[in-house]
Amino acid sequence: MYGLTMAAFLLAVFVNGKICKDPNMVSANDFFFPGLNMPGNTSNPLGSKVTPVNVNQLPGLNTLGISLVRIDYAPYGLNPPHTHPRATEVLVVVEGTLFVGFVSSNPADPNVKNKLFTKTLYPGDVFVFPEGLIHFQFNVGKTNAVVFAGLSSQNPGVITIANAVFGSDPPINLDVLTKAFQVDANVIKYLQAQFWWNID
Amino acid sequence: MYGLTMAAFLLAVFVNGKICKDPNMVSANDFFFPGLNMPGNTSNPLGSKVTPVNVNQLPGLNTLGISLVRIDYAPYGLNPPHTHPRATEVLVVVEGTLFVGFVSSNPADPNVKNKLFTKTLYPGDVFVFPEGLIHFQFNVGKTNAVVFAGLSSQNPGVITIANAVFGSDPPINLDVLTKAFQVDANVIKYLQAQFWWNID
Amino acid sequence: MYGLTMAAFLLAVFVNGKICKDPNMVSANDFFFPGLNMPGNTSNPLGSKVTPVNVNQLPGLNTLGISLVRIDYAPYGLNPPHTHPRATEVLVVVEGTLFVGFVSSNPADPNVKNKLFTKTLYPGDVFVFPEGLIHFQFNVGKTNAVVFAGLSSQNPGVITIANAVFGSDPPINLDVLTKAFQVDANVIKYLQAQFWWNID
Amino acid sequence: MYGLTMAAFLLAVFVNGKICKDPNMVSANDFFFPGLNMPGNTSNPLGSKVTPVNVNQLPGLNTLGISLVRIDYAPYGLNPPHTHPRATEVLVVVEGTLFVGFVSSNPADPNVKNKLFTKTLYPGDVFVFPEGLIHFQFNVGKTNAVVFAGLSSQNPGVITIANAVFGSDPPINLDVLTKAFQVDANVIKYLQAQFWWNID
Amino acid sequence: MYGLTMAAFLLAVFVNGKICKDPNMVSANDFFFPGLNMPGNTSNPLGSKVTPVNVNQLPGLNTLGISLVRIDYAPYGLNPPHTHPRATEVLVVVEGTLFVGFVSSNPADPNVKNKLFTKTLYPGDVFVFPEGLIHFQFNVGKTNAVVFAGLSSQNPGVITIANAVFGSDPPINLDVLTKAFQVDANVIKYLQAQFWWNID
Amino acid sequence: MYGLTMAAFLLAVFVNGKICKDPNMVSANDFFFPGLNMPGNTSNPLGSKVTPVNVNQLPGLNTLGISLVRIDYAPYGLNPPHTHPRATEVLVVVEGTLFVGFVSSNPADPNVKNKLFTKTLYPGDVFVFPEGLIHFQFNVGKTNAVVFAGLSSQNPGVITIANAVFGSDPPINLDVLTKAFQVDANVIKYLQAQFWWNID
Repeated sequence: MYGLTMAAFLLAVFVNGKICKDPNMVSANDFFFPGLNMPGNTSNPLGSKVTPVNVNQLPGLNTLGISLVRIDYAPYGLNPPHTHPRATEVLVVVEGTLFVGFVSSNPADPNVKNKLFTKTLYPGDVFVFPEGLIHFQFNVGKTNAVVFAGLSSQNPGVITIANAVFGSDPPINLDVLTKAFQVDANVIKYLQAQFWWNID
Repeated sequence: MYGLTMAAFLLAVFVNGKICKDPNMVSANDFFFPGLNMPGNTSNPLGSKVTPVNVNQLPGLNTLGISLVRIDYAPYGLNPPHTHPRATEVLVVVEGTLFVGFVSSNPADPNVKNKLFTKTLYPGDVFVFPEGLIHFQFNVGKTNAVVFAGLSSQNPGVITIANAVFGSDPPINLDVLTKAFQVDANVIKYLQAQFWWNID
Repeated sequence: MYGLTMAAFLLAVFVNGKICKDPNMVSANDFFFPGLNMPGNTSNPLGSKVTPVNVNQLPGLNTLGISLVRIDYAPYGLNPPHTHPRATEVLVVVEGTLFVGFVSSNPADPNVKNKLFTKTLYPGDVFVFPEGLIHFQFNVGKTNAVVFAGLSSQNPGVITIANAVFGSDPPINLDVLTKAFQVDANVIKYLQAQFWWNID
Repeated sequence: MYGLTMAAFLLAVFVNGKICKDPNMVSANDFFFPGLNMPGNTSNPLGSKVTPVNVNQLPGLNTLGISLVRIDYAPYGLNPPHTHPRATEVLVVVEGTLFVGFVSSNPADPNVKNKLFTKTLYPGDVFVFPEGLIHFQFNVGKTNAVVFAGLSSQNPGVITIANAVFGSDPPINLDVLTKAFQVDANVIKYLQAQFWWNID
Repeated sequence: MYGLTMAAFLLAVFVNGKICKDPNMVSANDFFFPGLNMPGNTSNPLGSKVTPVNVNQLPGLNTLGISLVRIDYAPYGLNPPHTHPRATEVLVVVEGTLFVGFVSSNPADPNVKNKLFTKTLYPGDVFVFPEGLIHFQFNVGKTNAVVFAGLSSQNPGVITIANAVFGSDPPINLDVLTKAFQVDANVIKYLQAQFWWNID
Repeated sequence: MYGLTMAAFLLAVFVNGKICKDPNMVSANDFFFPGLNMPGNTSNPLGSKVTPVNVNQLPGLNTLGISLVRIDYAPYGLNPPHTHPRATEVLVVVEGTLFVGFVSSNPADPNVKNKLFTKTLYPGDVFVFPEGLIHFQFNVGKTNAVVFAGLSSQNPGVITIANAVFGSDPPINLDVLTKAFQVDANVIKYLQAQFWWNID
C-alpha cells in the first residue's frame, strides 16, 4: 500500500512549490477554469468582490507568468487601496463607470509629495497599474460595474493596505501605528477595532 | 532650432527600444487606452478580429510584462492556428460559444503524434494557451462571440501559421513547402495564391 | 557647437533609461560612493532617516540588480510601514535594539487575517523582508540604532504607506478613503492634514 | 524496505520538475553526453535528422539555460518549418550548402505580409533564428550537410508546423483547418492523411 | 509509521532544490539569523574571514535574490582574488582602511591588457564588484577592518582563485598549469604544495 | 547637415547599450556571420585560439541570450583556466582529443578542497561548464583539435585567470598577490613579467 502511494508520489514533481503533473496525465481540463460569468458577491462593507484565477485556482498556470481576475462593484463599491507585490495589473472595464488611481513611489525630493494619477473609466477603457504600486477602483456610476484584469504573475499576491496595516493578526503595535500615522492612539484603536473584510 | 530639438531629445530615454518619457511629464493618460467596448470588424474571410492593447498601442506598458487583447468572432468565425513567440495567453469568454484548442510540442517518441487539447467554452470560462504553442478559437455558436485575454509580455508578437507559411513576402520556396507538407506543388501553389488576411 | 554636443551625445548609450558610459571612460570612481559613515539626520517627526545608495546615487549599479541603504533611528525612531515594489530587503543591525515586522499578503480564506511576523533585533541580527510586503522597524532601545541593508534591485523604489495613502498630491478622494478605512470623513481629513515627511 | 526507498528519495531534490542530484554524488559524467559525431539517420521522407542534447538527454543542463543539437541533412533533405517555443537558435554549418530562412511575426499593417528572410549558407557560416519564429533549413547542395546549433534554453521544445497542424492526435477539426487555410476540405483531408514524421 | 513520515513529507515542497516550509508553519525565525556582530576569526594565513548569510544559513532567503556577508580583516589581512559566479557584490566599509580592486574581463584587442580598477576605502565608503569579475580587498590600515556586503543572489557562490587553481582535489594537471601560467613545473609544484585555506 | 544626422540618429534606438536597427531596414545579413570554417591561428604560446560570434561580432544576437564560439587547439594547445562571468558553456568536440575540466566553487567546509571534475573527450562528445566556474580544455592528442560551443548569453564575457591575475594593467599589487598565492615576491614578479596573451 505504501509502495503504491509512493509510486504515485514519484510521478509528481514539484515546480515552484506546486505539484507538476506527469505530462501523460495532463488533459484540457488542466488549462480550464469555469465561472467568471457569475457576478461576485458584493454584499460586504466595501461593495466589491474579486474573483481570482491564478495558480491557486488553476494549477496549469504554474511557471507561465500570468493570471486573471474578475472584479465586481456594486454602486459606490470600492476595491480599496492595495498592492500586488509581484505583478503589474492591466484592467479593461466591461460595464459601469469607475474612478481609478495609483500613487507613485516616494519622490527623490523629501519635500515633494507622492503623485496620484487618476482617471474615470467607461466600458472598453483599459488602464495599467504598475507593479507594486498602491491602487484602487471606485464605482462612481449608478449601476454595477465589472472589469476583467490580467496580472503579470501566476501568483501575484495582494495586500489590502487597511487590512494589512490595521487588521493584521496579531495587530501591529500601537506605538508603531500612532507614530507612522501621526495621530493619537484612540484613532488607531478605532481603526484596529473595525472588522477588516478581504474581498479577494 | 537644432538646439531646441536636441533639448527635447535629451529628455527622452530609451528602454527596450521604446522612448521612455521624462517622469515629470508622465500623466494618467500614459497608462490609459480606450475603445475595447467596440466590436472588432469581423467582415473578413476568417470572420474574426483581434484588437490588441500592447506596448505598440499603449507605451506605458513598456517593461511591465503584460498586455491585453479583445477578440471578436462572427458566427463560425475563426481565430486561426497561431503562436505568440514571447507569451502565454489566458482568455476569458465574455459572450458566445467557442471551440478552442492547442497542440503540444513534438513528443520524445517520433512514432507518437503531437497531442491536441480541446475544450468547448461558454461565457465565464477561462482557458490557458502556454507560451509558444499553436492554438486556435472557433465560434461554434449561432451568435457573435467575444473574449478578453491577457498575454504575459508587453510585446507578445503573433504568428499566424497559414500567413507565415503560405503568405510570406517573398514566398517560401516551393521545394521547401512541397517537401514539408508532402503534397505536390499544385497544392502549395494553390495555397500560396490565397489572399492571406491578418486579423491582428 | 551643435555638432560637438551631438558627438558627445553619441558616445552615451542608454540602458534601462540610464546613460551608460563609454567603457573606455570608466574609472574606479564609477563604482564608488562615499559617506555611509555619516549618521542620517533623524530630526524629523518619525525620528529616522534612510540614506540610499542605489542607481540614482551610484549609476555604476545599473543592470547589476542590487543596492544598499543605511538607516538611522533616534530613540523611539520609526521607519514606518512601507513596501519596496521591486525588491526584497535583508538588514543587519549594527547598533541599537529594533522591533521589526512585516505582514503577509491576504490569506486565501477571507475570514482569516493577514499575519504579522515580528522580532526584536539586537546588534548582529539579520532579518529578511520579502519583496513587496509591508514592513517597519522601530527603535525600542534607549540609544540610537543603525542598520545596513541590501535590496535585490538597483532601483528598488519605496512606498511609505501613510504618505502614499494620506499624503499624495493631489489627495486621494475622501469617499475612497472613508470607505477603505471604514471611518468617518473627519478622521480621514485629520489624517490628510498631517505633514507627511519622506525619510528616504 | 519502504524506509530505505524513502531515505534514498529524500536525497533527491527537484528543480524545474527534474530530480537534482545530491551534490556529493555528482561526477564529471553528469555533465557529459557522447555521440554527436554519429550522423543522424536521414532515411525518412524529409531527408534530415535532429539529434538533441538538452535536459532530457543530459540532466546536468538543468537551470543552465542552454542546449545543443546536431542536424544532418541528406541531399535535398529538409528540416521543415518549425518553431522553438522557448529558445533562440544559433547555427553553424559544418559541411554542405543550406538554404535557410525565417518569417517575421505579423506586421502591424494587415495589408502588409509577413517578411521572409533567407540566406544560402556554406561551411563556417553562422545564422540566428530568433525565439519563437518559424524557420527551416534545406540542403541545396549535392552532398550531405551537417550543422551544430546552440539553443537558449535547457528545454527549448520544438513544434514542427505541418505535424502540429495536420498530424496531431486527435486531428484538428476539418472546419477549423479549411477556414484557416482557405481551401476545400479535400485538400485538408489529403494533408491529414499523410504520415507525419518527427525528425527530432 | 511510514504513512506518518510520508504525510510529513507531503507537507514539504521543493523550490530550487530547497525544502519550502508549509506556509502555516512559517514563523519570524524563518527570516532571522543572529551573530553578525561577532568578529570572524582571522587567525589564518590570509588574516581575513568571511561570515556569510545566504540560503545555506538562512533558508528563508530562497527565491528572494539577495544575501549578506560580514568580512573581517586583521591588519594586512587579505580577502584574496575571487569571483562570485552568480552575483554582484556591493560593500560598505564599517571600520578600517581597505585597498580594493577588480579586473575587467578580456578586452576585445588581444594586445591590450585586462584593466585593474582600484580604490582605497575608508569607513562609510561603498564599492561595487560587478557579477563574475575577479576582485579582492586588502587591509592597508593598522587596525582591524570590517565590512558588510550585499550580494545579488540568495546563493552567490564563491571561487577563490588560488584555491580553485592550485588547491583543488584532485589537483589540476601539471601540464595544464605550467602552460597556463608559463612557468616551469617547479613553481607550480611549489604552489600546489601550499595549504589552501578557504576563508569563506 | 545637423538635421540629417539627427534624423538618422532618431531612427536608431538603444537596447542593452547597443544600437537597435529600424525594423524596416533589417535584412538577413543582420542575422549572419561567416568564417567559422577557418581554423583560428594557434601560433601563440598557448597553442589555441577562440573565435567568438557574440553580440560584438553579430549585433543581431542582442537580447536573444545566446552566442557561439569555435576553438582551435594545436597539439598540446591549451585553452587555459578561465571563467565566463555571465554564461554557461556547452561544447561539442568536432575533431581531436581534449582533456577538459572545471572546479566547483568553495565547499561549505573550509577543510575540504574545491573539487575538480575532468573528462577526456573525443569527437562527438558534449561537455557542460556551468556558469561562472573556472574551466579549461587541453589538447592531449597528436593532431589539431576543434570544438564548437554555445554560451547562454549574447555577451558572455571571458576572464582568463592568469591574464587577469598576473597580467592586468596596472598590475595587481605585489603584497596582494604574494599573500594570496602564499609565495615570495620573486615568484610573483616572475609571473608578472610574462607576456600574457589573450587567445579570445
